[in-house]
Formats: sequence, C-alpha cells, structure tokens
Amino acid sequence: MSTSILNRINSPEDLRQLSFGDLPELARELREFIIDVVATKAGHLGASLGVVELTIALHYVFDTPNDRLIWDVGHQAYGHKILTGRKDVFDTNRQLGGISGFPKRAESEYDAFGTGHSSTSISAVLGMAIASKLKGQNERQHIAVIGDASIASGMAFEGLNHAGVSDANTLIILNDNAIGIDPSVGALKKYLTNVKKGTAKDENIFECLNFDYSGPIDGHDFRALFSELQRLKSLQGPRLLHVITTKGKGLRQAEEYQVRYHAPGKFDRFTGDLPNESEEVGPPKYQDVFGHTLVELARKNDRIIGITPAMPTGSSLKYMMEQIPDRAFDVGIAEQHAVTMAAGLAAERMVPFCNIYSTFLQRAYDQVIHDVALQDLPVIFCLDRAGIVGEDGATHHGMFDMAYLRCIPNLTIFAPMNESELRNIMYTAQLGLDHPIAIRYPRGRGVQRAWKTPFEKLPIGSSQELKKGSRIAVLTIGHIGNRVARIISEIDENAKIGHYDMRFVKPLDKKRLYDVFERYEHVVTVEDGCRLGGFGSAILEFANELGASNKVELFGVDDVFIEHGSTHELYELAKLDDRSIKNLLTHLLDAKKHS
Amino acid sequence: MSTSILNRINSPEDLRQLSFGDLPELARELREFIIDVVATKAGHLGASLGVVELTIALHYVFDTPNDRLIWDVGHQAYGHKILTGRKDVFDTNRQLGGISGFPKRAESEYDAFGTGHSSTSISAVLGMAIASKLKGQNERQHIAVIGDASIASGMAFEGLNHAGVSDANTLIILNDNAIGIDPSVGALKKYLTNVKKGTAKDENIFECLNFDYSGPIDGHDFRALFSELQRLKSLQGPRLLHVITTKGKGLRQAEEYQVRYHAPGKFDRFTGDLPNESEEVGPPKYQDVFGHTLVELARKNDRIIGITPAMPTGSSLKYMMEQIPDRAFDVGIAEQHAVTMAAGLAAERMVPFCNIYSTFLQRAYDQVIHDVALQDLPVIFCLDRAGIVGEDGATHHGMFDMAYLRCIPNLTIFAPMNESELRNIMYTAQLGLDHPIAIRYPRGRGVQRAWKTPFEKLPIGSSQELKKGSRIAVLTIGHIGNRVARIISEIDENAKIGHYDMRFVKPLDKKRLYDVFERYEHVVTVEDGCRLGGFGSAILEFANELGASNKVELFGVDDVFIEHGSTHELYELAKLDDRSIKNLLTHLLDAKKHS
Repeated sequence: MSTSILNRINSPEDLRQLSFGDLPELARELREFIIDVVATKAGHLGASLGVVELTIALHYVFDTPNDRLIWDVGHQAYGHKILTGRKDVFDTNRQLGGISGFPKRAESEYDAFGTGHSSTSISAVLGMAIASKLKGQNERQHIAVIGDASIASGMAFEGLNHAGVSDANTLIILNDNAIGIDPSVGALKKYLTNVKKGTAKDENIFECLNFDYSGPIDGHDFRALFSELQRLKSLQGPRLLHVITTKGKGLRQAEEYQVRYHAPGKFDRFTGDLPNESEEVGPPKYQDVFGHTLVELARKNDRIIGITPAMPTGSSLKYMMEQIPDRAFDVGIAEQHAVTMAAGLAAERMVPFCNIYSTFLQRAYDQVIHDVALQDLPVIFCLDRAGIVGEDGATHHGMFDMAYLRCIPNLTIFAPMNESELRNIMYTAQLGLDHPIAIRYPRGRGVQRAWKTPFEKLPIGSSQELKKGSRIAVLTIGHIGNRVARIISEIDENAKIGHYDMRFVKPLDKKRLYDVFERYEHVVTVEDGCRLGGFGSAILEFANELGASNKVELFGVDDVFIEHGSTHELYELAKLDDRSIKNLLTHLLDAKKHS
Repeated sequence: MSTSILNRINSPEDLRQLSFGDLPELARELREFIIDVVATKAGHLGASLGVVELTIALHYVFDTPNDRLIWDVGHQAYGHKILTGRKDVFDTNRQLGGISGFPKRAESEYDAFGTGHSSTSISAVLGMAIASKLKGQNERQHIAVIGDASIASGMAFEGLNHAGVSDANTLIILNDNAIGIDPSVGALKKYLTNVKKGTAKDENIFECLNFDYSGPIDGHDFRALFSELQRLKSLQGPRLLHVITTKGKGLRQAEEYQVRYHAPGKFDRFTGDLPNESEEVGPPKYQDVFGHTLVELARKNDRIIGITPAMPTGSSLKYMMEQIPDRAFDVGIAEQHAVTMAAGLAAERMVPFCNIYSTFLQRAYDQVIHDVALQDLPVIFCLDRAGIVGEDGATHHGMFDMAYLRCIPNLTIFAPMNESELRNIMYTAQLGLDHPIAIRYPRGRGVQRAWKTPFEKLPIGSSQELKKGSRIAVLTIGHIGNRVARIISEIDENAKIGHYDMRFVKPLDKKRLYDVFERYEHVVTVEDGCRLGGFGSAILEFANELGASNKVELFGVDDVFIEHGSTHELYELAKLDDRSIKNLLTHLLDAKKHS
C-alpha cells in the first residue's frame, strides 16, 4: 500500500501545498493509516473514518492553527492528529505517556481546545471568537465540528442561542451521520432527517436561531466541501454548515455495524473482521450485571423504568430496551433531562433506574441536588465507569463522584464490592427506599463467574466484616476491596489485619465504625476516587466526631488529574497499586512489632 | 375593595363552579390580593401579576390536581398558591415556618413538582406523562408553564427534544413576556419577537421539534385562553401554546419598571411607589463591590471580560454592561455555556470574570471540571449568594460550593471576609494567575463603609492572623468571620482565643496551620456552608496528614436542606448563630480553666 502523499505531510502547511487533485489519494492513505494503527492498537475507529475528507478539507481551506478548530467530543479527531504533526507518535494513542485519544491543548497548538465530554465546542469557539474580535483579529475563523447527537444536547443549544446574536466569527460544522456512539434520538434528529429528505418546510431551525445555514452537502465529496468552505471562509458572523457523512466510511464492517465499530478493539486489518469472542468464562462486566439484573427485576416490578442518556450499549440498558421497550428510554446526550425526568417519574411513584457514567453525572449535578435530593424522590442512580477507567483518560475517569455526592442531604451512596452486592442493592432499591440512592461501580469486570446469585435485601447503611483482625482495620469501598483482600491474605500471617467492606459511603455504618475505632489502633481507608472530600474524608469526619485518636491512613487519588493509560499503570501512578498498599500495611505491621 | 369572589375560592374545585363571566372580576380581586400582601410582606411581584388570567384559566379548564401543573422557576406561582387553598396563609410567604416562595410538593398536592431553579419543568412533566401513560391514565394532562427566558436554557431544549418524539401527554405553555428577572436575550428571544410581529417564516421552531404549536395568543384575554386551552385539553401528545403576557400586569409601575418590580421589597400598596432609598450610609452589598470593582479593573486591563448567566442586576455586572458593553455579556440562563465560553476566552489569554450564584454554579459543575480545571485555564469565578441566603430558601442557599469545588484539582478557592479582601483578590486574580479561582461571597452587605480601599496583591494560599491567642484557635472562612470576631471580643477576657481569617479553602495556608496545630490545643472551624466535605473537613484532612491530635470542632450546616426564613433565623436553625458559637467557645474556655 502506498502512503507516498501522507508521508510528506508533517503539518497542515504541507497539506496546503498539495494540488486539489491529490486530496482523494491523501484521503485514501489517511483512512488506511487510521485503520492500520487502530486495528493493532485499538481505539475509536468509526468517527474518524467518517470525517477523513472533512478533516483534510478544513485544514486545506483554513489557516490552522491561526484559525481555531475544535472537535466536539473528539472521537473523530484521529485524522486531525495525524495531519498536525502526530503521525509518527500516533501508535502511542491512548497509552501511558503517549498521545491522548482526545484533542488536548497541551499536546499541540492545533488542538485549540481540549474535548472529551460532548457539546462544549460551540461555547468554546464563541469565547475564542469574541476574544479575536476584541483583539481586532477580525479575519480569524473559529470552527466547531459537532455531530448531530452532540448538537442536540442542551449545552450546545445554549451556545447556538448566544452565537446566533453575536457578530463574532463562529462557523459550526454539523457533522450529521445520524449516530453518536449509539444511533441518535430525539425530535431534532427526526427534523434533520426530514431536512435531508427535503420534506422539511421552508425555514430552517438554525435560521430561526439567526445562523447563516447552508447544506446539507455530501461530506465525502471534496469538490462540494471545498467550494462551500471557501465561500464560508469569506463570510463573517454565525454560520452553520450541514454536512452529511457516513460513520465508519471506507471499512465495510465499520459502515455496516456502526455501534460495534465505534471502538472495536483490535481487529483484522485486512478483512476488517473482529476476533471471535471466545466463550465467556471470566466474570461478567459490571455493566452487564446491571443490564441483565434490571431486566430480571423489571419483569416482576412493572414500576421500574430504565433511563440512559445516549449510552444504551455502554451501560447495557440495551437489554431492557430490547426486551421491555416501553419502559426503557435512551434520552440522548441529555444528562440534565435524564435526571429530572427520573424525578418526575419518581414523583408519580414509578421506580426509575437512571444509569449515567460517573463523569457524566457531573453534567446533572444541580438536577441531582435540586430536583431529586431536595424533594427526596427515590430515584436510583447507577453510576457506571466510577473510578479510574484507563485509556479514555482524564476526561473520563469517574474520580469525583463520592466527594461531590457526599455533601448532598437525603442521598444514599453505595459501592458494590462484587456482582452480588450490585444485584442485591438494585433489588433492595426497587423494593422502595424513601430516599434517592447512587450506586457507583467501575468499568470492566467483576469477580464472580457465577454472578446470578439469589436476591437478598441489604440493610441501608450496613457494612460487612470480611475478616477479623486485631491491630489494623482496613475499610474499603467497592470493587477495589477485592484487590485489598488479596493483598491482606498475602501478608497477614498473624491475623492482625481486619478488613471491612463498607458498602455505603453514606450513611456510614456508624455501629461498625464505633467498634472498629474501639478495637483497632490503626485504620486504613481505600477508595477508587479522589481523596479530598471522599470516602476517607467521611471516615475522618466520623473519627473527629467520635473524638477518636486512632491513626488513620487514606488511600485515594491525589489532588491531580490522572491521564490515560491502562488501569494497571494508572493505579501505580496514583499510588493505589498493590505495592503501595502492601508497603503501607507491611510498614504498619512492622511498626507494631517493634512497639 | 371587594373580594367577594376570591373569598369563596378555597380550591380549584370552587373556581370551576364559577360562571365564565365571573373570571375577569376574580382576576381583578386576585391581582389586588397579591399586591396587598406583597406590598407589606415583600416577595416576587411582577411574574405572578403577569399570569393571573393564565393561572385562573388553567385551573378553570383543567382538572387539577389530577391533571399535573408545574410552574417553571416558580416566581409566577403566587396566584396558583392563593387559588389552591393557601389564601389564608399567603401572608406567611417566605417566612420561617410559612409557605415557600416557590412551588413545593410537601406543601400542597397542587404543587406537582417543586421548582426554584429554571428550566426543569419540561423534563418533569414528561416523566409524569410517561408514568401516566404506563399506568393507562391516558386522559391525564401534564402541563408545564415556562417563560421565554427559561425555555432558552439548554435543559429545556433537552426536554423539548425528547417530549417531541414521545406520545405522552405534555402541554407546554410558553409564557412569553420577553423578560426573566432581567430582559431576555439570545437568538431564540429574537426569533420569538419575530413570531409575535408575524415576520417569522412558515415553519415554527417548535414545529421543527415535532410539537403541535399554537398561538401566539393574548394571555390576558380570558376568551382566547379558554377556547385554546379547551381545544388543547381534548388533544394528546406534545403540544405547545405560545401565550403573550405582560410582566407586572395591573400595577402601572410594575409594568413600566419590570426589573425593579420583579421583587421590589415592600412598597406603597395604593400608589405602587417604592420607599425613598435613604442616602446610602451602611456598608455596600458584596455584589456592588464586585460590580464596581470590576469596572475599575476593566478600565485598566483591557483583557478583562465580564460574564453573567441572566443576572446582570443581581450580580451587579450591569455596571460593566452599561459602561464597557463590548466586554460584558449577559448570556441568558445558560450557566454551562457561560463557563465554557469563559474557558474559550481564557484559552485566548483574555481574563474572564464569570459571575454565577453559588447555587446556580451547580448547573455548570462539569464545565468547571472538564473545560476549565482540567485545562488549567485561569477563569475567575465569582460566586455570589454563597451560604445561607434567607427567604428564597432551600433551592437558593449556596450551601455546597466549598464541598463540591474542593475536590477539583488546579482550582483555587477563596472567600473574602470583607470588601477589601474581595477587591484585593479580584485585583490579584486579574494580574494573572496560572490557575482558575473561585471567589465565594454572600448575599447582602459587607462591613466596610469606606470599602473602596487601595488594591493590594494577596499571596495565594495566605491567611491572616486577626488575633493571637493561647489555647483555642478559631479558623474562619469568609464573611462569617466578622461575626465570630465580635463574639470572641465579647468573651475572651484573657486572650486565650486566637482568630484566623483563612481566606483560602484551597490551597490551605499550611504554614499557618502547622503553627496553629502546634500552638493551640483546640481548633474550631466556622464556615457558612455544608459541613460534610467542606472547609472544616479540609482542616481535618490536614490534621490527619500532620498526625495532629488536637481536638477539632467544626461549625457548619448539618446534612439537611435548610428552609426559608430570615438569615438570622436560619443561622439559629442551623446552629450557626451567635449563641451556639459563643456557647461552644465559652465551654472550651471553661473546660480549660478546670483542667
């Protein structure tokens, strides 16, 4: 395969030297390059394949990095990274010390604004455009590339609503492929479909918002892209170009199975095929325990409702959506709406399970406080991807939830140590709590192959003694407790170390804690989340109230943003790895021996 | 003045017995009743006057409370409260133990969903409508009344986007008066103006979102309201009725000065006039210190930008908007956009001051983390109304900011004890910090009549020793420190109590704290915010790291939502009043004497 043109492109400057006729060949080479690397290194595939022509055209027509270019969410920015000087390090994508899977300011001057979460790009370009205007840089263009799923999120509307009445230079490229990670939903999606079919009426919704609207045009047609971008470049003020693309373009399977090939893992570079999934023998993913258990419970409790903001596949709510479609809702990228709709359902005595990734619940923080907790409505939040998530990096770790939820009155916070605990708390919650509850669990697999255990009711605020000890009590919260249990079993020859699965960050099991602070000299807490204000901090508050003088050691993530890498590497980086925990416990054991 | 009809109305049931011809007289009486009470008891005036006819018509036509009715934000719900059994207690509005100034589920079955923050109503009615559908209650109607300022917020768009493709019974009443608290802004407002003028084109923006749109109709015309609501009642699915009203309707001054009469305080019931503001002799409001100081700084630093989401008057950003309009922006009810636009500005080396009420920053929590702090962009957040705010109650107290911000890496958190500290931190921040900063200050007045002190640079992380002591160190954060200083001066005859204005919640002044924990036996922290995870909790984390064994006592708000009342009453309720603090300190002093 020839990559003779791409080889010569080390920056958009080089790209702009090419003749227009070379661009289709460059597109072919760029696509091949992306497929080559992602096939062996894994990553996000479909989104970047879909915007190869658009990426080339934007850098060809506009004067990046002087013109500002922001990729909303950023899954689609691989081509951009490769064309802007990161071709040679692209195989380090998403690895520790390598480039990020998302645009990142610290990485390149071409990454005008870091992304990862959806729908930020319009606000960011407007801020930049206003800055340029005030500095007298009236010719500078500020471009946001945003998908049809992302533009339907409330934050994007807020950006449009302001940009539409500003005379700053914002150019919004609506990359309409009718899919986010899962297929797009909602009234705007339906409307855009009508626009594409030509059945929409005269006035365009974006024109209503005072944008100079053009399109839809074929996003794989260089001639159309080039002439329209050239025209738009010469204009000023708020403009929106509607571009139609195909996610996964250029790889048959990626076009056909767009959800599966969003981030397919490694695959056969030549056939495009995914490796055969071997018979499932390991423990299940927590998300699947959630997904299947919810169906199991919903079959018996017809008040149960499932809600996901645009993550039916990632949350495994898809099982309920397939099997009980009238009670399971994908509401699109709309975390705020998801939470308050859940509150509305709970107000009518339904039992809503609202599944949101930990990092994305940050988007609905006020709704959790104001609409759910203040009214004490028993919404059941299931926070997937809590803790360190790995290769998606800083924008996606679920680092803060215990800290930001703990201060909210009326809210119960639970973290299951294993599949059974997740099942049992879901079972318990749908029986009818008088308060809202947040259940946080990590990305990835649990520990029980035989996970489909019979349901048991869990008393709210109850912990579990996993092992009695005499000198050191280790209090763990959630899945990380399994690792701690193994470490303890490796070093604790004389049963000095007690281990408690605390389960509830709130309410704390105070009876247990009285006992622990009475019986043990040292207390160690371990959590997969930020240390400031988190679970360990709650234990300190308890100890202070008690007037206890025990030494307390807190394991949690330092007050820094954790980058991307394997979870194993990141735990090491965060000093939450086996060795760090083992070292401290050994040290405490030894210290005791000498005293 | 006759109130012969209103006197007979104790519930909507009574209202529905009236003949249609009686409604205008009822409207007149209801308006008079609202004016009577608000004139003497204060409260929100203009919004409720504007929807008197609409309120009567809705309860007349629909079968409340079986049909669900939600008032977005809720400033406009006074008429609703009076007609739904709360006429006799309406004079307790916003008082401790009295009715809430906002709809509240616990208060009445007619308050289907509590409100206070904007733009939640569409999501809530959709949740309720879906519940009804699943229960087979297909005739039930679910109505959200939402203003044109609130419907422009992103969350409302998310609700519309979902409701538009749902077959559940949602009826959105767009109460278009072209003003929120301040005049509405944005592209949607401009569009709605065109619709009203008849200059908009054929297809309506709400029709684009698949709503059955009707209107605009005159919201003060009973005949128009009645016939259109009757028609809509017989339909199902998503409908939107566009109603034009005049905020303040029926009181000349309230119509003319809509911003001033949004919540005018007490006024002359007969003339409508406000009391003459006596010559300003007391200390200024913190908001005005912010507003005037920003202008002062912005005149010298042309990179300063001011941003408010829909609170130009409440935040006093209006001064900069009047005097330096090209650099001061009211972006509408769009906290998410406000924060990320600020991040975009900071990325271009502008110096954005983003002023948001503490309780409303909850709406932009993810943007603070993901767009500002993760990228370490030096946005300057000014959080007004931090701490207990008084009569607005549980939805509006700025209770949680220290807890939810403290876990965010890169972020500095500051609370000024007085006007000079606010001025100095604003001065310091605009000189150029390398990190974002949040500055929290309370509603109401400071302590310095001569507040316009010369600017001084404040070292980041530096505290101030207000008074040396020997046994007890009191660490305060922010304005509440003034009260504590007075209490200490009243009881500390022998200079046993030291007092430290800590200023920074983060980074803590560790040098000072080493010294304090070394020198004093007791440490007491006082903060105007939630105790869980807050400032005191940060001190406990520090003490634990240090291995200190000093007794620490934390003053802060318990883990409950605080209701409405005067701040004085609420501090008492929260055990943050003078007596509680004095009692503890006296007790500690005495305990020492006896030891």
